[in-house]
Amino acid sequence: MTSDKKNVSLLADLFIKKGLSDIIISPGSRNAPIVIAFTGEPSVNALSIVDERSAGFFALGMAQQSGKAVAVACTSGSAALNYAPAIAEAYYQKIPLLVLTADRPPELIERGYGQIIRQKEVYKNYIKASFELPVDIEDEETFKNTERMINEAINLTQFPEPGPVHINIPFREPLYGLTDELLKAEVVDYEKEPVNTEQYISELAGVFRKYDNILIIAGQQQKDEEFNTLLSTIVAKNVVVLSETTSNMHDDRFIDCIDNVISTIEANEASNFQPEVLLTFGGQVVSKMVKKFLRDHPPKEHWHISPSGEPMDTYFRLKRTVAANPKQVFSELLKVLPESSSTFFNTWRQRKELLVQRKNKYLGTIPYSDLQVFDFLLKHLPNQTNLHLGNSTPVRYSQLFGSQKKFAYFSNRGVSGIDGQVSTAAGNAYSNKNLHVLITGDLGFLYDSNALMNHYLKPNLKIIVINNSGGGIFRFIDGPAQSGHLEKFFEAKHNWKAEKIAKAFGLNYYNAENMDQLRVSFTNFLADQKAPAVLEIFTPAVKNGNILKGYFAYLKSKSV
Amino acid sequence: MTSDKKNVSLLADLFIKKGLSDIIISPGSRNAPIVIAFTGEPSVNALSIVDERSAGFFALGMAQQSGKAVAVACTSGSAALNYAPAIAEAYYQKIPLLVLTADRPPELIERGYGQIIRQKEVYKNYIKASFELPVDIEDEETFKNTERMINEAINLTQFPEPGPVHINIPFREPLYGLTDELLKAEVVDYEKEPVNTEQYISELAGVFRKYDNILIIAGQQQKDEEFNTLLSTIVAKNVVVLSETTSNMHDDRFIDCIDNVISTIEANEASNFQPEVLLTFGGQVVSKMVKKFLRDHPPKEHWHISPSGEPMDTYFRLKRTVAANPKQVFSELLKVLPESSSTFFNTWRQRKELLVQRKNKYLGTIPYSDLQVFDFLLKHLPNQTNLHLGNSTPVRYSQLFGSQKKFAYFSNRGVSGIDGQVSTAAGNAYSNKNLHVLITGDLGFLYDSNALMNHYLKPNLKIIVINNSGGGIFRFIDGPAQSGHLEKFFEAKHNWKAEKIAKAFGLNYYNAENMDQLRVSFTNFLADQKAPAVLEIFTPAVKNGNILKGYFAYLKSKSV
Repeated sequence: MTSDKKNVSLLADLFIKKGLSDIIISPGSRNAPIVIAFTGEPSVNALSIVDERSAGFFALGMAQQSGKAVAVACTSGSAALNYAPAIAEAYYQKIPLLVLTADRPPELIERGYGQIIRQKEVYKNYIKASFELPVDIEDEETFKNTERMINEAINLTQFPEPGPVHINIPFREPLYGLTDELLKAEVVDYEKEPVNTEQYISELAGVFRKYDNILIIAGQQQKDEEFNTLLSTIVAKNVVVLSETTSNMHDDRFIDCIDNVISTIEANEASNFQPEVLLTFGGQVVSKMVKKFLRDHPPKEHWHISPSGEPMDTYFRLKRTVAANPKQVFSELLKVLPESSSTFFNTWRQRKELLVQRKNKYLGTIPYSDLQVFDFLLKHLPNQTNLHLGNSTPVRYSQLFGSQKKFAYFSNRGVSGIDGQVSTAAGNAYSNKNLHVLITGDLGFLYDSNALMNHYLKPNLKIIVINNSGGGIFRFIDGPAQSGHLEKFFEAKHNWKAEKIAKAFGLNYYNAENMDQLRVSFTNFLADQKAPAVLEIFTPAVKNGNILKGYFAYLKSKSV
Repeated sequence: MTSDKKNVSLLADLFIKKGLSDIIISPGSRNAPIVIAFTGEPSVNALSIVDERSAGFFALGMAQQSGKAVAVACTSGSAALNYAPAIAEAYYQKIPLLVLTADRPPELIERGYGQIIRQKEVYKNYIKASFELPVDIEDEETFKNTERMINEAINLTQFPEPGPVHINIPFREPLYGLTDELLKAEVVDYEKEPVNTEQYISELAGVFRKYDNILIIAGQQQKDEEFNTLLSTIVAKNVVVLSETTSNMHDDRFIDCIDNVISTIEANEASNFQPEVLLTFGGQVVSKMVKKFLRDHPPKEHWHISPSGEPMDTYFRLKRTVAANPKQVFSELLKVLPESSSTFFNTWRQRKELLVQRKNKYLGTIPYSDLQVFDFLLKHLPNQTNLHLGNSTPVRYSQLFGSQKKFAYFSNRGVSGIDGQVSTAAGNAYSNKNLHVLITGDLGFLYDSNALMNHYLKPNLKIIVINNSGGGIFRFIDGPAQSGHLEKFFEAKHNWKAEKIAKAFGLNYYNAENMDQLRVSFTNFLADQKAPAVLEIFTPAVKNGNILKGYFAYLKSKSV
């Protein structure tokens, strides 16, 4: 038995045939045919999550783990708009999502019926592609056209790079009709033309031969040991590799604490750190400092590697986009790459090592604060932790400590919102049984507290809330304080706590407001096998800002 | 002192000159120039609310009270997308909002910088108009053009009908620059051409003379005693007026419980209730039954009155849209309207009176349930209550009891989402010191619990949560149960409670799970002058569904 709506019946058939398996449905009436079609025979793994905003991010987290598109499905009207933040994040972070919105039939749009907005192309600015299925499928050509649309929509969630795709599905009443007639659609796979990287490799090798000072920046990407090994081989050839925690690349020779280094580069030595060639790949780069440094001291040539060939001209010096898989490019490039005798690598390396010493020295002197708490957490979180970093304070703090092999780092850096980080971590933890720890701020936690209104939270989800009574990040820069509106409009100062919210949804709760308490609570929190848990760590807002400012001053200080 | 960004400095100047006074700013960095410009000299009433989704609905609530556009302002990226649900509601409910989104300058879009989406026209499908201010204003013509754009944007929040308008404002760094130079812009008001209703009135009067059976449906609109009096005068001429609680029209002769009547009309008597002429005005109509009845038994002519002239052809019989103010139209029409000798009015009136008796009889027989709780609440809420009705169960229940003069009814019926009802009620209560009572369901409350993460809640905000462990509305129709997925995907069954969430944000909390408890808790809850409060009323989900089904069966029952 399935829905008698042929459009969604075909969709469910192709969804399964193309190997997809997960759908999150938010309650509603108009999307009843989607419920029926996706929970019939054979069914898929169907979850029910009330708040579409949270459901979207939960799906994004699931897709981060599986690499496969996860579908979200909602009723018509503003429900669909609540997916928007997660779609934008998926679009820029390149995560496959299939967004299904139920709709009224075309003849009822803009005629005063309930729960109607114009859903066609409603996500246009931040989605890979949008489709609308026909409401009636009575002839062969409409059938084939629908089949083609659905195939294309699902294909586009993966090729040439992953991302979100929207299918709007109009249904005419009655909505609950059933049929035994299971429609069978034909799978059409994406015809990938094999990328010929030969020309690219030859050109890139030429660039490497021509110039000495070569800098690679690894943007955000998921952990990949094989790729990591390739980059380690490249760094051995005296190429400078800048990485961030979110690049998930680990090697002592990588410059993995970019801001530490860049913040200490004086004007008169900047040219020593300036690359001739810049090679980038992956997603977003967290460091604002490196973007500023490279705009002020640009490379002669910037090459960007991206399967979709998008011209990511961050530094206004883009010479060429290599439309290929970066791993493949580096693998082939290595075969022809000469070793550089440049001192460029040593310049960066020595500065990094000096600053690691200074950092450790400074950390030994500071009192209880955000910085000390991060130092503690990053040291004591166990091996094989999936570490989810909230925006923006937690993800920025993490960069100061460099990248650790024991972590797989995650962060919503596609558009860097605070809106869905708890839901995203929860979606990851649902799909992967290892430990998932989210470090977020108080505002990030509270904003997305609907993530806890969820039947699928597992004990492997551990949420650390660093509660400094507001958006601490605004205390680290001078502008907000000078404007006279720091507390109200930037920091958004408050005295809300996570405890009752955690308990309202059945999570266990721990807290700490000094290092002694933290050591005890942290151990109990991680050992808690019974339920997902929240550890709320209260830190002093004003001190936090001063200690971080002091940190950067200390790194620069010649007397240390 | 103000921001040195001329685009926003001009905007703040015109905002004040055009009589606007309220802005809600969500924390962020990119929108710092907006903070600075709107909190300088002279400043406006500026609020800080963290979650943009809630802030949007809070602004909508404020604008419902003031009738003036309220501005919302956020940082760049997905923050902007969280306004989308409130914008869609404002668009279809015709509430003035001015949506200000801070943006990066054009040269940094799509280049890998943080918190960027393509914000230009991002709300295109559900907004009246979108503007983007220039980043630089260095010459006279750009200045004048910007001035014109801002004037037009603010004008369009009111004319020809109110609604939301978007201004995207790019800023180049540094963001916190100040200046003493206050830019002065020139106000350009909307040139309203006076509507000549003479021709309309003459045509309408002709229609009234030609036909006997005339039906008026009052859609959603705010309370207006004068307009109410006009409609009372019309009903005295034997015209049938259908109203809903959300039409805020009160007269014993109005058919103010549409579903009660329509549900009892048998096929063989339908023609007695079928109008020859249908005249509509106002916003959305809640009743699905009346829409179905009038599509099955359409009028010969449908005239719709709407200042913007939109062709709202709900019943597929639209003859003409009268592009004028409905109050003015009725006022003039009354002068020429003959009294009808039709029996049409009596047919409707008598049925209504019969059903009021049956309803009261049924209510006397039922046990503790949603229906009994609504009966109690609507009877005992005090005079001059602003009553906010959640979607969809509460607003539908309210219709069964007819319209009471003691209430001003509010409900987000523009797109009928459950997403922002608590925030909307809170925004109303902030702007108007009278009592504001929201009746919502458990899912509506939980979905929008971020409404409580708000520094502007006053003791006049009282939230009644009818907790029946899920979306009770899905128990009243047969489809969900037959699909076998009622509890998981339609009702979204849960056992979450409002208590800890209310307390997390400092609201007082009361509860009840039977009528005796309700009487006591309700009194204490309403008498609580200290803080905003939540009253959670637990009702039995399965019984609720059966009792409501029994209600409609009883209304129809010939033996009663």
